[in-house]
Amino acid sequence: MADTTRTSERRYGTRPTMKDVAARAGVGLKTVSRVVNGEPGVTPDTVRRVQDAIDALGFRRNDSARILRKGRTASIGLVLEDLADPFYGPLSRAVEEAARAHGALLIHGSSAEDADRERELVLALCARRVDGLIVVPASDDHRYLEPEIDAGVATVFVDRPPGRIDADVVLSDSFSGARDGVAHLIAHGHRRVGFIGDRLSIHTARERLRGYRTAMADAGLPVDERWVSLGPTDPERVRRAARAMLDGEEPVTAVFSANNRVTVTAVRELNGRARPTALVGFDDFELADLLSPGVTVIAQDAAELGRAAARRLFRRLDGVNEEPARVTLPTRLIPRGSGELPPPAGGPSRS
Amino acid sequence: MADTTRTSERRYGTRPTMKDVAARAGVGLKTVSRVVNGEPGVTPDTVRRVQDAIDALGFRRNDSARILRKGRTASIGLVLEDLADPFYGPLSRAVEEAARAHGALLIHGSSAEDADRERELVLALCARRVDGLIVVPASDDHRYLEPEIDAGVATVFVDRPPGRIDADVVLSDSFSGARDGVAHLIAHGHRRVGFIGDRLSIHTARERLRGYRTAMADAGLPVDERWVSLGPTDPERVRRAARAMLDGEEPVTAVFSANNRVTVTAVRELNGRARPTALVGFDDFELADLLSPGVTVIAQDAAELGRAAARRLFRRLDGVNEEPARVTLPTRLIPRGSGELPPPAGGPSRS
Repeated sequence: MADTTRTSERRYGTRPTMKDVAARAGVGLKTVSRVVNGEPGVTPDTVRRVQDAIDALGFRRNDSARILRKGRTASIGLVLEDLADPFYGPLSRAVEEAARAHGALLIHGSSAEDADRERELVLALCARRVDGLIVVPASDDHRYLEPEIDAGVATVFVDRPPGRIDADVVLSDSFSGARDGVAHLIAHGHRRVGFIGDRLSIHTARERLRGYRTAMADAGLPVDERWVSLGPTDPERVRRAARAMLDGEEPVTAVFSANNRVTVTAVRELNGRARPTALVGFDDFELADLLSPGVTVIAQDAAELGRAAARRLFRRLDGVNEEPARVTLPTRLIPRGSGELPPPAGGPSRS
Repeated sequence: MADTTRTSERRYGTRPTMKDVAARAGVGLKTVSRVVNGEPGVTPDTVRRVQDAIDALGFRRNDSARILRKGRTASIGLVLEDLADPFYGPLSRAVEEAARAHGALLIHGSSAEDADRERELVLALCARRVDGLIVVPASDDHRYLEPEIDAGVATVFVDRPPGRIDADVVLSDSFSGARDGVAHLIAHGHRRVGFIGDRLSIHTARERLRGYRTAMADAGLPVDERWVSLGPTDPERVRRAARAMLDGEEPVTAVFSANNRVTVTAVRELNGRARPTALVGFDDFELADLLSPGVTVIAQDAAELGRAAARRLFRRLDGVNEEPARVTLPTRLIPRGSGELPPPAGGPSRS
């Protein structure tokens, strides 16, 4: 019985990288990159040493642009953060449509908000020879991707910026969006506004918290730290957080929920209460307009995030060589009723 | 400049299959399968011919069970139908959790309800050496997968059965679910019940329509074909369909919407009308209980569909060799108000 399995292709990490070539040739990564890309500024002797290392290791450059031009089936990897978060539905579909328009296949996976998982998945996709990557990062250190990027894997980050490397990124303006949402509540008479957000390790969570604090400060309002709750977005935690700031001393009269997972639980908690509490949520979500009251949101253009990231990626795959850029998309306040509720008459009181 | 790209790995279809081995050896596929799996019933001369063809073509068996035992990073491919349909969120996440528990990576992609796209994606994943596949099929002919399955790629279908091949499949009981939902409307006094479903090329759409017709027939109620609308689930089509059956002659007093994409649009259409219309939807969806009235649904256990498919897949990857089986999961009626609305007093009338 034949067993011709070549184990070197069966797992990530065994494919030689530019770093390996650099180590073997005793030169820097930049030098290897220059040789591989046929750039000037390297002595013939160094070129020969790098070339020998390339041959010895079987390093192969992932020349995506050439592959695409030759009309072979290119593939794009998309690394998401949570498969079950509906925010990523339109984003994924937009990337898929762009991939399809370019004749490329889209494969994706989820990091489940775990930095190790993200790294494992990204490297597994690289080992499986994707031509380009779009990554919603869970990690805050993407130096592990440098050899892949140097080797020609076009990479664009979306929704959150990369950590410790310079690369293309497409973001929503989380700071301004949150600031506008909280200012909207303040404009409707609220002085005690709560903030329920995601974990602070997440860039968007930090930016939205900064927006909240800025709006409060701009209005000359103090923030009682009992009004701020950060953590995982599971319903149990969010429900506890909402109850604490609504039922405690100095209760809030309005809540800003910092993403759609938080908002749907906040709606559920507020819905069962006698006293109406104003609510503005970051992210639009399906059926938000059919609830009573309709939920006022700061909407991101999730599809445009995907489209913009894909445009950037395919420009690189088409051979356009530009400096990494940051694109920031504006958000949009959609008033539907919940964010326009006034504070209880006679000022804040216990429910 | 080195270009050591081995093109044979860069696209699907160039990897030799069992079919190629069979053609070169001048034997049938079954014979190659016997030789590869070390089964009896093949003459030594034929074994040698097959072995020569294997060596000449560089065919390699994808022995997933052995790979898994050796502790290398295995990977599972999941082919969905629509990235933006929230029904697939819990299903995908359940498969991902199972994969993670087995130390395997999950890579997925979407067919966008296109048979060619499904085939392209499945074969691309096979070419990228996934150890197993879970497929929500868009195609009705999966014979293209036979060589891959013969070569050891464990394959389980979910949500819809495979076409023209025998393979493991995990389904919800669409027929009984739809029948129960329509019978529920009839039990609340409705005699004119509309059905808005997906395209008939989709297995679940056919099964749910059959459930509708059976419930009507069981109650001795005629079906006016103007009450039945089938087609794509985009909001514009669903809205037109709902309007036609609610505003036409012999208007319906209740609607059965055959999946969550249809239901969210039907809710939107019914919500704006003076006369309440009863509604039962197939599939539960987020916030269904917070609408007014709450939406009565036939709930599938989407997470259990994913878990059951993954269990089946990992049993095969663990080397358990069983006949392909069909698992059917029950559905559950969740009454929330919309399905318990009575017909208008005095019988059906124009709104």
